[in-house]
Amino acid sequence: MTSRLKTFSLYREKMNEKILAGEHLGIKRFFNLDTSAYRDGSLSGKTKELLGLVASAVLRCNDCVDYHLIQCVTEGYTDAELHDALNVALIVGGSIVIPHLRHAYETIDLLRQEPTGQP
Amino acid sequence: MTSRLKTFSLYREKMNEKILAGEHLGIKRFFNLDTSAYRDGSLSGKTKELLGLVASAVLRCNDCVDYHLIQCVTEGYTDAELHDALNVALIVGGSIVIPHLRHAYETIDLLRQEPTGQP
Amino acid sequence: MTSRLKTFSLYREKMNEKILAGEHLGIKRFFNLDTSAYRDGSLSGKTKELLGLVASAVLRCNDCVDYHLIQCVTEGYTDAELHDALNVALIVGGSIVIPHLRHAYETIDLLRQEPTGQP
Amino acid sequence: MTSRLKTFSLYREKMNEKILAGEHLGIKRFFNLDTSAYRDGSLSGKTKELLGLVASAVLRCNDCVDYHLIQCVTEGYTDAELHDALNVALIVGGSIVIPHLRHAYETIDLLRQEPTGQP
Amino acid sequence: MTSRLKTFSLYREKMNEKILAGEHLGIKRFFNLDTSAYRDGSLSGKTKELLGLVASAVLRCNDCVDYHLIQCVTEGYTDAELHDALNVALIVGGSIVIPHLRHAYETIDLLRQEPTGQP
Amino acid sequence: MTSRLKTFSLYREKMNEKILAGEHLGIKRFFNLDTSAYRDGSLSGKTKELLGLVASAVLRCNDCVDYHLIQCVTEGYTDAELHDALNVALIVGGSIVIPHLRHAYETIDLLRQEPTGQP
Repeated sequence: MTSRLKTFSLYREKMNEKILAGEHLGIKRFFNLDTSAYRDGSLSGKTKELLGLVASAVLRCNDCVDYHLIQCVTEGYTDAELHDALNVALIVGGSIVIPHLRHAYETIDLLRQEPTGQP
Repeated sequence: MTSRLKTFSLYREKMNEKILAGEHLGIKRFFNLDTSAYRDGSLSGKTKELLGLVASAVLRCNDCVDYHLIQCVTEGYTDAELHDALNVALIVGGSIVIPHLRHAYETIDLLRQEPTGQP
Repeated sequence: MTSRLKTFSLYREKMNEKILAGEHLGIKRFFNLDTSAYRDGSLSGKTKELLGLVASAVLRCNDCVDYHLIQCVTEGYTDAELHDALNVALIVGGSIVIPHLRHAYETIDLLRQEPTGQP
Repeated sequence: MTSRLKTFSLYREKMNEKILAGEHLGIKRFFNLDTSAYRDGSLSGKTKELLGLVASAVLRCNDCVDYHLIQCVTEGYTDAELHDALNVALIVGGSIVIPHLRHAYETIDLLRQEPTGQP
Repeated sequence: MTSRLKTFSLYREKMNEKILAGEHLGIKRFFNLDTSAYRDGSLSGKTKELLGLVASAVLRCNDCVDYHLIQCVTEGYTDAELHDALNVALIVGGSIVIPHLRHAYETIDLLRQEPTGQP
Repeated sequence: MTSRLKTFSLYREKMNEKILAGEHLGIKRFFNLDTSAYRDGSLSGKTKELLGLVASAVLRCNDCVDYHLIQCVTEGYTDAELHDALNVALIVGGSIVIPHLRHAYETIDLLRQEPTGQP
């Protein structure tokens, strides 16, 4: 079952490499800017990963939810904290978020089963 | 100019009272649940207001952005912290968020001009 | 205060006439198809106006909410029925729908103050 | 082919149980509120399932569409009625809804092949 | 790997036939209108396929992205032109578009491997 | 009536200056990237403004629609071409786009009344 996250991470890495190996400067710069947005700044990187998680959940993107959950687990958030953040997403975004909530709970479980907390 | 926030807050309060004075139990319960979601829990209420702000910005709702900015200023966030959170919303949500970024910057300025930090 | 709905209806009518007086056949056909979608069919027009209202609310379009509320009041829905439909929209769409819920409650009040139930 | 719906229903049930076995009170209350929203009230539960279906279709959530189609078939809607509701979703939401329309038509067929009308 | 596009095209064709063999006149007319929207008009069909691609990407619908990419490759767009269009979608829609960007890059590669440029 | 566009352009300029005078590097870089996305590249800037218009319309942002219409008129698009692009947005995005279509038609008229084609 862990393989769902491994498959996602490998595909994500492979395609990102392909995109960044391409010639479109604007797209490459966007990817850099995206990475920078979650670095320590006025807010800590840890806080911003949680913002990324909630934004991904209300916009209902499972791949984005998975990516930010991996980062959040690495940053040391507990299950209770992640559930509390997901509850904000659920209230703001409504029941249409529930399928992504189910997905997120499963992803958290998968990550906790990994010795490294990473797929 | 401050009156934009005052007008919003008064209208919000008046209509919420009307809705809560109505007979629909489900709607009243939803409002309670919404309020509870931002109370201290596994995450602090302060953190969750920032989550609410970013969720509102990527979903592009000015009223919701204003509401959460009022709460965030009350919670003690600095301008630099609010801008850093809004940057996450901008990266996740793209240029379509920019009109709401302009709105948010203006709201922050209006709130800072208030002696109480509240409209 | 009623004038909010009157202003909307007049603007809507004026611009629709302008659009339909234009030369783009595809746009005209879309408008026809849109009108037809709410005529009696396998479901009654009355039921379909309620579907249009909830779709408009979860997609968070105040003009569309107002338009369908005008039709729903004409079709004879009670306040309690409209609130019950809006509650479904609130649950599905979440707290981001609340500003539109406030708008909808106000519109319903305005329509009830009209002798004809129409702006 | 029926197994698509069976797989979905089993996964949905399993993960909902996991979520509801958790400790987050807000999330549990939201699930209760969600269930209550489709009970008989000022509008019948049958009507509200159709509202849920159209809201799910315009918000483009296949899992939600499937869930409400299962409920709608149980409530006794005919194919022609379901198609008429989906047409409202198509007009309101545009061609971006078409992939979900294809999915919905397939789900309706699968449900009709079941002796119980349930996956 | 090409089979991903073949599977999509066959499913799309099969379900569209089923939908168009049905009795709902409104749905059939919508499908006609949809096809007409991409025919040569004041703008060329070629230009309008690119508009369809960007609209599909910012609305984050992989099936729609794939469909318009097939048309765009048939119309003769180069990879560099398609990437430039997708960059506009990325800037407008933000990082939430990235999973669909990965999908689009892969689809373009698959189409280029086909002797006919078609799945 | 022209003043609607003048008011928008002045507000947009004033707030953008404020944002760019701020200290958040990520936000400034995003604004640069946004401007660059519409410069001549593999596709012409003229084509990309039309892509920006359609993306703005399906995402239902009036400010963004106005901004891209100003650019499109400056680039020399005719009314018929703009209507043809908006028709694609209408088909993809559905009737929920209609209020923005009305807004766009009005904006085009306002721009045509300006000696410079600019607010």
